[in-house]
Amino acid sequence: MGNISHSFHYFVAIKFQVKLMKTTTYELKVQGFHIDRYGHVNNGRYLEYLEMARWDYIEKIMDPKIAEEKGWNFIVVEINIRYRTPAMFQDMLRIETHMQEPGNVKVQAIQKIYRVTDNKLIANAKVSFVFTSRTTHSPLRIIGDLKEYTLKSQ
Amino acid sequence: MGNISHSFHYFVAIKFQVKLMKTTTYELKVQGFHIDRYGHVNNGRYLEYLEMARWDYIEKIMDPKIAEEKGWNFIVVEINIRYRTPAMFQDMLRIETHMQEPGNVKVQAIQKIYRVTDNKLIANAKVSFVFTSRTTHSPLRIIGDLKEYTLKSQ
Amino acid sequence: MGNISHSFHYFVAIKFQVKLMKTTTYELKVQGFHIDRYGHVNNGRYLEYLEMARWDYIEKIMDPKIAEEKGWNFIVVEINIRYRTPAMFQDMLRIETHMQEPGNVKVQAIQKIYRVTDNKLIANAKVSFVFTSRTTHSPLRIIGDLKEYTLKSQ
Amino acid sequence: MGNISHSFHYFVAIKFQVKLMKTTTYELKVQGFHIDRYGHVNNGRYLEYLEMARWDYIEKIMDPKIAEEKGWNFIVVEINIRYRTPAMFQDMLRIETHMQEPGNVKVQAIQKIYRVTDNKLIANAKVSFVFTSRTTHSPLRIIGDLKEYTLKSQ
Repeated sequence: MGNISHSFHYFVAIKFQVKLMKTTTYELKVQGFHIDRYGHVNNGRYLEYLEMARWDYIEKIMDPKIAEEKGWNFIVVEINIRYRTPAMFQDMLRIETHMQEPGNVKVQAIQKIYRVTDNKLIANAKVSFVFTSRTTHSPLRIIGDLKEYTLKSQ
Repeated sequence: MGNISHSFHYFVAIKFQVKLMKTTTYELKVQGFHIDRYGHVNNGRYLEYLEMARWDYIEKIMDPKIAEEKGWNFIVVEINIRYRTPAMFQDMLRIETHMQEPGNVKVQAIQKIYRVTDNKLIANAKVSFVFTSRTTHSPLRIIGDLKEYTLKSQ
Repeated sequence: MGNISHSFHYFVAIKFQVKLMKTTTYELKVQGFHIDRYGHVNNGRYLEYLEMARWDYIEKIMDPKIAEEKGWNFIVVEINIRYRTPAMFQDMLRIETHMQEPGNVKVQAIQKIYRVTDNKLIANAKVSFVFTSRTTHSPLRIIGDLKEYTLKSQ
Repeated sequence: MGNISHSFHYFVAIKFQVKLMKTTTYELKVQGFHIDRYGHVNNGRYLEYLEMARWDYIEKIMDPKIAEEKGWNFIVVEINIRYRTPAMFQDMLRIETHMQEPGNVKVQAIQKIYRVTDNKLIANAKVSFVFTSRTTHSPLRIIGDLKEYTLKSQ
């Protein structure tokens, strides 16, 4: 009986986490010039798709004007992307983006690309970025007002 | 008889002009990600090819450091490109670039893209550009030291 | 008095012409990776913008499925583009596209790119294309069902 | 004394491993249209650099014609890339590429991008790919003649 009660609480905790996570969706259509000689979207173009979706996220959730005023640049330091299913000419794609809890200097975006027609997973990626100072180009510790800014994603 | 002698001189003059025109050649290989869904190089990629060849020209003939020091930006204002023969995956291309005599504000680059294996003309383009001031972003009249700079191409 | 009546008829004629021309509008936002080292959209990216807008036109007005079934490829043979005002990061752009009356083998698309906020003209272009056979890769004469197809644009 | 002799053998073994690994180097120059609004090479462009260097590897070490004849497509399934130092306009870059020992279905390319002038590491990447059949689009087990083909990299 104790066990049952325990797993119930666990379930609630998961639901909470999902609710608190801010996720944006961004849609785009595959163009003829995204296709490469194999007839599917070239691996490099997906990074453009992901970047479009991250800026859309930043606009909707984090406000790019604040980063502009503060002189904070968003600089990608690592990308891990897995290609699951090839996307083809004129496919409508939906990209879901959310952010992990910010670290001391890094933030990690989790991005999933789905084909709209059948919700098939096309690719998924983890994109780590830091904030650098526009003047010094050095990475900034995520404290104070920058911490507050990144917590908008949570 | 006077007429014959006259046309002979005219012919010499034309030969001279051709000799004096500085032309650079730039080679590149077609990549898989340049190919679009029709299996040939996408029309937009050719503008990257032309830009690579123009910077190569500027380096070889005009010296980009001078423009950098003077605060002169090379800004494209018009492109006319004709696509003659499709370029395919792994084709070696050769781009020939020369400049027309500079006008009051514009310079026109003449660029031809050939396939190396058979010298077939792939595309030809006229690219007009102006010089703008890095600080004011206004187009500059081609006079004085800027005139001297552009005449390096002749 | 005769003159006034005459110019009235002339005005009506112009209105008719405008009504008959089918124009589509396509919007997109300038991304950070469209920007080049001069801080504005690179000249080559505009050809991607134009291609996106033309496919949007083909979908809305001409039906890409028919061309697919018939084995007609849309092949660009010439582009003339004039860059009027630089587009900057996060500008919203509106592209207006219409087609000229089809010739014997060529169709010409007229495309204008405006900045949405102030209707400033960013660039305008004429893009000539032909139809080639998917099997023979030869250009097709615009007659019969292909003529009928291209006249959808009028 | 036994210990000293032991470490000597160990050293020899490492030297052997290095000799047996086939590595190619590919050089390219950063273009103005590779730069994004932050003034450095955009994260997506590096995937084009890596793809250029992998095809160069395939040409030099593995022979692309064999893959073409056999109907084997090289399909990227995962990329992990770490951006170390920003590359800037007109930097000369050198990309070193080698392949890990092939697995049952996957091969992993190890790629490092250096700035030529000071050998600074710009980015490093692991790129996993599989071979798919051109006709069925299914991944192929790396056995038989495909095994032999991939072992050219060792």
